[in-house]
Amino acid sequence: MKTEILIIGGSAAGLVAATTAKSCNQGKGITLIRKEETVMIPCGIPYIFGSVMTSEKNILPDAGLHKLGVNIIVDEVTSINKEEKNCKTKKGEIIEYEKLIIATGSKPVKPEWLKGRDLKNVFVIPKDKEYLDSFHKQLENLHKIVIIGAGFIGIEVADELNKIGKDVTVVEILPRILGAAFDEVVANEAEQCLIDRGVKVNKGIGIKEILGTDKTEAVLLNNGEKIEADSVILSLGYVPNVELAKKAGLKLNEFGFIEVDQYRRTGEPDIFAIGDCSEKRDFATGRLSKTMLASTACAEARVAAMNLCKLSTVQTFRGTIGIYFTAIGDTAFGVAGLNKAVAIKEGFDVVTGSFTGIDRHPGKLEDSHKQMVKLIVARHNGLILGGEVIGGKSTGELTNVIGFMIQNNMTVNDVIVSQIGTHPLLTASPAGYPLIKAAEIVAKTLKS
Amino acid sequence: MKTEILIIGGSAAGLVAATTAKSCNQGKGITLIRKEETVMIPCGIPYIFGSVMTSEKNILPDAGLHKLGVNIIVDEVTSINKEEKNCKTKKGEIIEYEKLIIATGSKPVKPEWLKGRDLKNVFVIPKDKEYLDSFHKQLENLHKIVIIGAGFIGIEVADELNKIGKDVTVVEILPRILGAAFDEVVANEAEQCLIDRGVKVNKGIGIKEILGTDKTEAVLLNNGEKIEADSVILSLGYVPNVELAKKAGLKLNEFGFIEVDQYRRTGEPDIFAIGDCSEKRDFATGRLSKTMLASTACAEARVAAMNLCKLSTVQTFRGTIGIYFTAIGDTAFGVAGLNKAVAIKEGFDVVTGSFTGIDRHPGKLEDSHKQMVKLIVARHNGLILGGEVIGGKSTGELTNVIGFMIQNNMTVNDVIVSQIGTHPLLTASPAGYPLIKAAEIVAKTLKS
Repeated sequence: MKTEILIIGGSAAGLVAATTAKSCNQGKGITLIRKEETVMIPCGIPYIFGSVMTSEKNILPDAGLHKLGVNIIVDEVTSINKEEKNCKTKKGEIIEYEKLIIATGSKPVKPEWLKGRDLKNVFVIPKDKEYLDSFHKQLENLHKIVIIGAGFIGIEVADELNKIGKDVTVVEILPRILGAAFDEVVANEAEQCLIDRGVKVNKGIGIKEILGTDKTEAVLLNNGEKIEADSVILSLGYVPNVELAKKAGLKLNEFGFIEVDQYRRTGEPDIFAIGDCSEKRDFATGRLSKTMLASTACAEARVAAMNLCKLSTVQTFRGTIGIYFTAIGDTAFGVAGLNKAVAIKEGFDVVTGSFTGIDRHPGKLEDSHKQMVKLIVARHNGLILGGEVIGGKSTGELTNVIGFMIQNNMTVNDVIVSQIGTHPLLTASPAGYPLIKAAEIVAKTLKS
Repeated sequence: MKTEILIIGGSAAGLVAATTAKSCNQGKGITLIRKEETVMIPCGIPYIFGSVMTSEKNILPDAGLHKLGVNIIVDEVTSINKEEKNCKTKKGEIIEYEKLIIATGSKPVKPEWLKGRDLKNVFVIPKDKEYLDSFHKQLENLHKIVIIGAGFIGIEVADELNKIGKDVTVVEILPRILGAAFDEVVANEAEQCLIDRGVKVNKGIGIKEILGTDKTEAVLLNNGEKIEADSVILSLGYVPNVELAKKAGLKLNEFGFIEVDQYRRTGEPDIFAIGDCSEKRDFATGRLSKTMLASTACAEARVAAMNLCKLSTVQTFRGTIGIYFTAIGDTAFGVAGLNKAVAIKEGFDVVTGSFTGIDRHPGKLEDSHKQMVKLIVARHNGLILGGEVIGGKSTGELTNVIGFMIQNNMTVNDVIVSQIGTHPLLTASPAGYPLIKAAEIVAKTLKS
């Protein structure tokens, strides 16, 4: 068969690429090929274990694509022929394309060195519905769960399993949970939240091996301690899924991601790459990065689709700015841009300021929540490099406010002369809005 | 007595001016003089009738000012002597100042032409605790309440009184409630929300008079209809409180606000004016405006305090951008910048785009809420002029995202290549984030 635009991969990036390509390249035929009959909402996966109880309630719907006339094929591309501009599939199909977008995503790390990794009841967390459904079912009869790795997905799964009554222990090699994302104060508060809800946290200690004969029995830590485990969940990060690209001769960078330019174009002018499989460069430094986020993937997808048939210098991807957040119970934790530790490591001379207030006014309103905002600012020019937030459910959008400040190169001075909207039932008070107050504190430090 | 910086008025603007002045003009003595022993949180006033049940839980605390060493005087300034740079007070004090900030606020409109306006049980909504406490007490025995004016305060009070079991009717002369703030779709949905909760809405009809002998009995509308009323609450807007400034010979603009420049300086170089009493100019047009908002007042207060002793051309007030929102039950409604009707009236050629999604992903999560974003964009250059939001409790901060887009002169193109953060429990999905989708829809229209 022939298609004008072919997209490999049907998760968030592939879906958005198809939608945007349809809207920007009118009249062009678009085919999306994916392995999965049904696609999971990637960030929703931790919540199938507790909050929504089944993967069926966490499906990325096809309706929008069907409505736009995108041709969806469930099959697997086994090779790409760059010269002839076609792909071969597992079912024996040959699909000719004019433009190709690779969005093959990532897969969970299951380290070779880890003894016991193939024991029964050791799981990873891929975006694969069949695997997850089977994993979910097996968990029913397993009570003591040890989760290795306390990044976002690890702690979200921990909290969900705890919620349904499992005995959950998280093991993290770093000195703090979420330690790569957050500075100490926020990470510690997130940890306390998790502990208060009943999750056990074991940090600063690596894992030596998983013990058991045919099935998991315990986890042996580097300090000799053993933790009983009916099941071990490995949440050790993800690596780009690039076999196909590699086989096709596309260049990978030193971290193993498909190299792309600012239009998300690979070395091959008609092949683009987006999402977890494609190269990331940090917004603040331009250096290679490993940050994988569905939201960033979607931004890359929009950029690729808009530049597919004609390049536009004002529609480029400016580099990944990590904007992420999570919630543990009623408390949410967010970060945008660089945290202090990373900023310093990257060579920035920074000033930070933080302010803690309440996200309603008066604070006596029943659903009020403490709200803390911390800003990380370059000392010599006042540019906002990053921010962290602790608060209630509006933490997500408040972190996005900081994300837009960073993307617009705002300085603390710009922030303190800015106008924000406030309302008793929805935000902090205008006189004590933590984002503005934090900026004032930084401004004062910069002046003194 | 002598003070270096004197602030008249203790509401949000006065408070923020004092705090910022302390931080920016170190060492200077600051005195804040106000009439009220206890200051109400202005935007919290509607909620004393239901959600917090008493004005005692809606107090702007003095602790922060005391801690900073701000001298608070409860007294009333009766005259300002610009030449001698002093103020006389009701208690007979003479206060000499170096710099003066006027933040005398606004007072509710009680139109002269309205027959029956002085009947018993006719109330307005000032920021005066004593008045409000008495009003609140009197309401206990009054059941049928008619509120005249369906702006934000009118509908918030209506919803709160309905919540505690009163029979509430709102009368609005415009064809829609909140009609000055929102375009039709949002205003209609807000109205439906209010009606669903039990408030009666009577719109497109003015009021002729309030009937009654000694106390309120009914409201007579312009169409001859009578609505029984044990109490009538006038929520017809506010006028700047400028008697003092006028008497001192400070220039007022044609709308009756104290004239100021972009540093919030009056014609007199040592006298600044901020908040509801001071001149407003629209962000998009630079024309005089009447928009009064506590949040804007606080931004003006910061600017005035920063420029009090030395001007800074990068710390000016760029014009009022109306960013406001409210909640009716679990649904919130927000607007930033110009709505479509105002934009067209002001002479902009605009394109709008709106998208409705869900503020969680998967949408099956229990506290998910429909989320609609509409963008109002200049056709010739793609600049975002305004936005409207309907959604859950994160509507406030999402509206602030749009507010920052406008203040940063972002175009729809900038938005569609931007990165946002998303999370299942906190925001819409990255593939269906209504703000980005609305921008895409506008971008498509602009291209076609």
